[in-house]
Amino acid sequence: MERSRLVFSGSGGQGVITAAIILAKAAAIFEGKNAVQSQSYGAAARGGSTRSDILISDAEINFPKVNQPNILVCLTQESYNKFSPILRPGGLLLVDSKYVTIEKKVDARHICLPMYETVMEKIKKPIVFNICMLGALIGISQLVKPDSILKVLETTIPKDFMTMNKQALELGFQMGEAAAL
Amino acid sequence: MERSRLVFSGSGGQGVITAAIILAKAAAIFEGKNAVQSQSYGAAARGGSTRSDILISDAEINFPKVNQPNILVCLTQESYNKFSPILRPGGLLLVDSKYVTIEKKVDARHICLPMYETVMEKIKKPIVFNICMLGALIGISQLVKPDSILKVLETTIPKDFMTMNKQALELGFQMGEAAAL
Repeated sequence: MERSRLVFSGSGGQGVITAAIILAKAAAIFEGKNAVQSQSYGAAARGGSTRSDILISDAEINFPKVNQPNILVCLTQESYNKFSPILRPGGLLLVDSKYVTIEKKVDARHICLPMYETVMEKIKKPIVFNICMLGALIGISQLVKPDSILKVLETTIPKDFMTMNKQALELGFQMGEAAAL
Repeated sequence: MERSRLVFSGSGGQGVITAAIILAKAAAIFEGKNAVQSQSYGAAARGGSTRSDILISDAEINFPKVNQPNILVCLTQESYNKFSPILRPGGLLLVDSKYVTIEKKVDARHICLPMYETVMEKIKKPIVFNICMLGALIGISQLVKPDSILKVLETTIPKDFMTMNKQALELGFQMGEAAAL
């Protein structure tokens, strides 16, 4: 596998950082990769956009920041406006259709999915929006197996919540796979 | 304020990463600092030790990893054995007395506190061990105000859990302040 450089962005409370931690753990603990995940707080946090960087690689990773992601996820218009310019040419841009309008097509694969609306319609719990996004992302990119994500979730969330998380992951995965065809 | 370089270490499930995120948010969102927080997963995660790095500074932070922390927290013997050699000379080492026996005094301030036992005796919930550790850390170092930690907790945890988190923070803070005298 080549090195994957990801940036997840959105606003506080959307679960962007949690999603990044789950993905990094899934890749490292259950798929034998190395993963580094980081975030900055400060001017950015106060301004409203949350960003988390994830690097996944077979090799060791020395520098944990992502300057030019090849995968960028934006869950708000503000984060899209701020981060879309750093996407690597030929990369993948995943946005949520309720929150983001793509304004300028850049040299990248654009995938806009109704993740938030699907979660609200089928599960009615905004808290699993981030898990649906993770499902969509791996449905498109096959970065890790859904099962590896589920194994991480099993170790970190209470049993009662597994059903809706699993459902959110599957809904996202199906949307992602369909969009990638 | 000078730049603070921290490493929190322990085993999976002790809440080391969560504590690091809370501290970074407290410093950045409520005390006007810049903060970067990161963790690696991979060989380390599979081996059992969890490590999270936090940098806090008035100035901008470019490189998010900590090579030589001036504050090191170890919540297991394994993490103590692994990370104590990287502590900066003259730095601060905080360990839990139930889990860690300090084996070799290095050129640093050693503080060993019964954080886990105090939490179990007074609150009976191991889940707030990490918050007690944060309380102790800021009681010793005055790195951020307890109030800034509480404000972060208020935005991230359900109301029903605030009481025990606040209690854990205060117990830790008192132990830390007393130890620093």
